[in-house]
Amino acid sequence: LQAAAEVIAEVGWGRVTTRAVAARAKLPHGAVSYHFRGKQDLLTEAALHSFEQAFPISEFESLETLPELVALFETWLGEHGSVDPVVAPVGMEAMFESGRDPQLRERLAETLPRYRVVLTGIVESAQQRGSATTAASPAAIATLMAALGDGLFLQARIDPRLDSAGALDALRALLTG
Amino acid sequence: LQAAAEVIAEVGWGRVTTRAVAARAKLPHGAVSYHFRGKQDLLTEAALHSFEQAFPISEFESLETLPELVALFETWLGEHGSVDPVVAPVGMEAMFESGRDPQLRERLAETLPRYRVVLTGIVESAQQRGSATTAASPAAIATLMAALGDGLFLQARIDPRLDSAGALDALRALLTG
Repeated sequence: LQAAAEVIAEVGWGRVTTRAVAARAKLPHGAVSYHFRGKQDLLTEAALHSFEQAFPISEFESLETLPELVALFETWLGEHGSVDPVVAPVGMEAMFESGRDPQLRERLAETLPRYRVVLTGIVESAQQRGSATTAASPAAIATLMAALGDGLFLQARIDPRLDSAGALDALRALLTG
Repeated sequence: LQAAAEVIAEVGWGRVTTRAVAARAKLPHGAVSYHFRGKQDLLTEAALHSFEQAFPISEFESLETLPELVALFETWLGEHGSVDPVVAPVGMEAMFESGRDPQLRERLAETLPRYRVVLTGIVESAQQRGSATTAASPAAIATLMAALGDGLFLQARIDPRLDSAGALDALRALLTG
């Protein structure tokens, strides 16, 4: 799956072949086509694997406060952050490709709410402790934060001068009310 | 360019051929290859055209208040909104493809800040009128809003149950402080 992610990152989703993935993984082509039902299946699994690797839900689940959460966003967005330069773009690109691929969309549509649920819990307890604004519901703030994270990630790839840190500071300021 | 965008939307960036675009546009293949320096050039122009069509900067520039701005986001995100089902995904997909295509990235990197500049102006005057929080700088809030818009757009494509309206309500609440 790592080999598949590397090939996707290099050539783009539509240009991947199982043959290229097998070559990258130093496996015979037959081993790859035996293990996956086809190219689409391989791409789906590689994408979900990449997404989970880039944005591990366990890291989310270990957080307790909003500042910790924003700091994790910062790490993920940071140039020298913990995000693998291969898996993160592939995980994000999968989100796009899913517009054309119902199987992939269904799998991703199951994944995204898991992040929002964790985020919602963190916002909720921050509100209860009085350390976050109650101007909006925990679920709405969580949806906002998840989308903001994706959007910053997307835009920072294009424009390296994007002030993601400034935007996250603004988020922090808005959340504390 | 519209034909190119349609083909990109259908088959995905990496699978587009100038031949397929010519067929869709009902033009001889020679006319397409004469007009553009190559497939990459055609894709870049089609993507930028789509991006501008989907998110016209002139609509941004005609706005004066933050509630109007959030309402425009709502229109763009709405299922029955004004966004063309072809051009919007292509414009967004271009953002991805730009990771692999320096020419495209450069062009997009020139485009994105234009939106942020307009957004910054709107936030700034809202702050001056006292109708927006001054907890963060206009530029930081504008960066946050632009990224949030992209992120919601991206996630709503995958998960139709995403509560974009709720997230925008939260944004409105956070911005008014």
